[in-house]
Formats: sequence, structure tokens, C-alpha cells
Amino acid sequence: MSKAVFYHAGCPVCVSAERGVAEALDPGKYEVEIVHLGEQKGRLAEAEAAGVKSVPALVLNGQTYHINFGASIEDLR
Amino acid sequence: MSKAVFYHAGCPVCVSAERGVAEALDPGKYEVEIVHLGEQKGRLAEAEAAGVKSVPALVLNGQTYHINFGASIEDLR
Repeated sequence: MSKAVFYHAGCPVCVSAERGVAEALDPGKYEVEIVHLGEQKGRLAEAEAAGVKSVPALVLNGQTYHINFGASIEDLR
Repeated sequence: MSKAVFYHAGCPVCVSAERGVAEALDPGKYEVEIVHLGEQKGRLAEAEAAGVKSVPALVLNGQTYHINFGASIEDLR
């Protein structure tokens, strides 16, 4: 089981990506953690270290995938 | 079973998104079709109608998700 982290900020684009992509991942392969960076600012550094530039973003297997564009991570600090 | 279509153009960003996201989708829920728009130009109109502006992009449940940025669809014509 791999861990996947979906970072978002509650924006409409984020909600769409969460429902569409994060919830479509194979539950037999991935344990998906959903992190709201607007509410969990303590996770911002970790997200930035993973290469997250904007939300929504999905980090899995060490790769960061930005899915459409909701907000820049700069604006969440 | 829902159909998901992953559009790409063979670029490195596309390959990463295909391996990372398209292959991570729940095979119990989604049948994933992989379309190389550089080689299947006949599918460009369909991709554009679905709202695909750049590749790689994933279309599922009527929503289009652009994953990172590999190439503009304008450059694939």
C-alpha cells in the first residue's frame, strides 16, 4: 500500500479534483490522505518540500501532480 | 464501470502523469483509455470539445483535469 497525499484549499477547483481524481484512485494500492492547507498551515512546509506550487495537487510515489489550478501555495501562507 | 480518457502527447511530463495518475485509478471503477494526440490527430476535436487545453489531461465523469503541463493542445494540430 502506497500513501498518496491530496493537498487542497477548499476551493471549487479543489473539490472537483478531490471528487474526481483523489476518490478515483485504486483503494487496493493507495491510502489517500486529504490535507486542507488553508486549515492545516503546519503542513505547508511539507507540501512545498514535495514540490507543490499550487492546489489542488496530488503527491504519490514521490511525484507531484498539479491538477488544474485553484490557488497558488504562495497565497495560502 | 465508468470510462476515463487520458490524453497525452508522449512528452516526459505526460509519461510521468500516465504512470502516476492514470495507472493509479481504481480498475474496479474505471476503464482507462490512453490517447496519444500526436499520433491520433483524429481525436483532437473530441479532446477540445471535452475542454482539454493542454496535455497530459484526464477526462472522467464529464470533468477535465489537466495534470501538470506538457504541451498546449494548440501545438498538437
